[in-house]
Amino acid sequence: MKLNIAVLPGDGIGPEVIAQAVKVLKAIAMEFNHVFTFHNALVGACAIDKSGDPLPEETISICKKADAILFGAIGKTSYDLDPYAKVRPEQGLLKLRKTLDLYANIRPVIAYEDLLTKSSLKKTQIKDTDILIYRELTSGIYFGEKTLSEDGNIASDICEYTRDEVERIAHLAFKAAQSRKRKLTLVDKANVLESSRLWRRVVQELAPQYPDVKLRYMYIDNAAMELIINPKQFDVILTENMFGDILSEEASVIVGSIGLLASASIGKDHAMFEPIHGAYTKAANKGIANPIASILSAAMLLDHFGLDDEAALIREAVDKSLKLHITTPDLNTKYDNITTTKVGDFIEDFINNPD
Amino acid sequence: MKLNIAVLPGDGIGPEVIAQAVKVLKAIAMEFNHVFTFHNALVGACAIDKSGDPLPEETISICKKADAILFGAIGKTSYDLDPYAKVRPEQGLLKLRKTLDLYANIRPVIAYEDLLTKSSLKKTQIKDTDILIYRELTSGIYFGEKTLSEDGNIASDICEYTRDEVERIAHLAFKAAQSRKRKLTLVDKANVLESSRLWRRVVQELAPQYPDVKLRYMYIDNAAMELIINPKQFDVILTENMFGDILSEEASVIVGSIGLLASASIGKDHAMFEPIHGAYTKAANKGIANPIASILSAAMLLDHFGLDDEAALIREAVDKSLKLHITTPDLNTKYDNITTTKVGDFIEDFINNPD
Ligand SMILES: [Mg+2]
Ligand SMILES: [Mg+2]
Repeated sequence: MKLNIAVLPGDGIGPEVIAQAVKVLKAIAMEFNHVFTFHNALVGACAIDKSGDPLPEETISICKKADAILFGAIGKTSYDLDPYAKVRPEQGLLKLRKTLDLYANIRPVIAYEDLLTKSSLKKTQIKDTDILIYRELTSGIYFGEKTLSEDGNIASDICEYTRDEVERIAHLAFKAAQSRKRKLTLVDKANVLESSRLWRRVVQELAPQYPDVKLRYMYIDNAAMELIINPKQFDVILTENMFGDILSEEASVIVGSIGLLASASIGKDHAMFEPIHGAYTKAANKGIANPIASILSAAMLLDHFGLDDEAALIREAVDKSLKLHITTPDLNTKYDNITTTKVGDFIEDFINNPD
Repeated sequence: MKLNIAVLPGDGIGPEVIAQAVKVLKAIAMEFNHVFTFHNALVGACAIDKSGDPLPEETISICKKADAILFGAIGKTSYDLDPYAKVRPEQGLLKLRKTLDLYANIRPVIAYEDLLTKSSLKKTQIKDTDILIYRELTSGIYFGEKTLSEDGNIASDICEYTRDEVERIAHLAFKAAQSRKRKLTLVDKANVLESSRLWRRVVQELAPQYPDVKLRYMYIDNAAMELIINPKQFDVILTENMFGDILSEEASVIVGSIGLLASASIGKDHAMFEPIHGAYTKAANKGIANPIASILSAAMLLDHFGLDDEAALIREAVDKSLKLHITTPDLNTKYDNITTTKVGDFIEDFINNPD
């Protein structure tokens, strides 16, 4: 297969972890006789530094021409500490999601057998957890109109959803549930928010089309608790943009490290794959960033094109690295000199020479 | 001291847990020679059933005349399942908070020594956790304007904050931090939300007035993770309405049961005390509801009036009940016949005859 892949490493630890994912994809291409071409582009703080724009036109154009996008992370501490900044790295990512209409963010949360003891949660609590989170990604309060009064004393954000926005991702989530344990949990705050009540009505209306899926509802505050108390109760979780942001980062505690969580962001015409950990600037350039989330994002990229054996091989290599403790310090207690690159090298080697 | 206390048991398990709190307050009054008078009033689904209004005028009037309000819980499953309902129990609570201007919701999160093993989190993770959450309670997206298009296909909610709304609760949180470990964490989503940037600016501006308090910022998605990974890093958490709702329910996993979490909602002229667990309808009238959250809310009520010895005695009684496993099934593994009333009776007895 020929794949034209746009590579947007971004800021912080983005470049170093994405370098490992690209290395792994190259190994896959060689092993399976695919032709993957990679086109780098700027986004985030590094793009602001270079062009003043967190998402330059050239980057949009490279992404639009690509079959898939591999995305690192964006963000920079100086912007986080400055609530007055007008241009922000995050705008690059939000605009990219919107421009490419990547409306469904899909995040697997899996408790790896070899990492059960790494979690802050008790082993018995998380063993066998396998959740798929469907987070709406191009609407809601992150994209709604923002206002700031002239004197700077009143600020507002609008959370708006339309029926269509809810329907399209709800269909994906129902279908995903059908291919899994057939349980779908809609997380909202329908007892208080009008937009949540729209979500609940629309999902309720679609449910008869998926009679084999058991649908239930949960309020976000309650879900934040239930996800920790009893994560195994969940199969597919469907939720709006901000609730999905919160829940999926929280869910990383089940996996043991946020450095393991991959994601796919899917639209009708485009697809982007990214680790959920963010720029984590203070870890940048130290060789301590965990590349697994990016490498598993590359596996999700291969899934997307039906390259199941290729994706499975990457996952096998990752499992092996975890079993042998070839992992960065966030996971490692056994060896203390395993760098970001070494993890990538191990997985690359495994792909070239699987046992 | 003479105290006129409005009692709003509400729905679900509200009445049975509040009955225990009232019993305990009566025991305190007798033991310390106070005169506490109690005035019951309706709120929530039970008020809708009786009068069509989740917050009848009479209830408002009783609350306004009272020195303090003891509140149970509201909510009913039939409303949760009906996204079309125009009148909802929750409106009663939201309106009450707004009418009495109870802008600061204060929630202690304490890992009880005798319950460390009850949590889904590892004991080492939570031991010595002692967090105080300041949640803004009368503004933000729960109170912002809601719209639904005529065809029912577009729904929106506005999250708005003013400088004054942020300032008044921020001062309370800074002061609380001064009397504790002098660490304040503002939780927001300032990288995306305009309202969060207002929070960050205002809190940044107030910080120089509290030079002994170490202030830091955390995004809500990250905070949802950090609260589980390393809860001991937090002292006082300050946040807006919805983020506080989510974080405080999530924080209950540290304590071991949401049935233990008390709260105070404070305004300039009024103060209300309530368990955070909600109506939990399916547990109602079974004698299994944990009354401790309500009883500890009564202790916070006494704190509010400077009745420190009285509050301390309640807490001592609660600790004793936990140590002796005189607890409802959510906490109990030792005895299986300890009802809501029995826990209340034990604490009442302890107050009348402390060892
Ligand atoms: Mg996030
Ligand atoms: Mg809540």
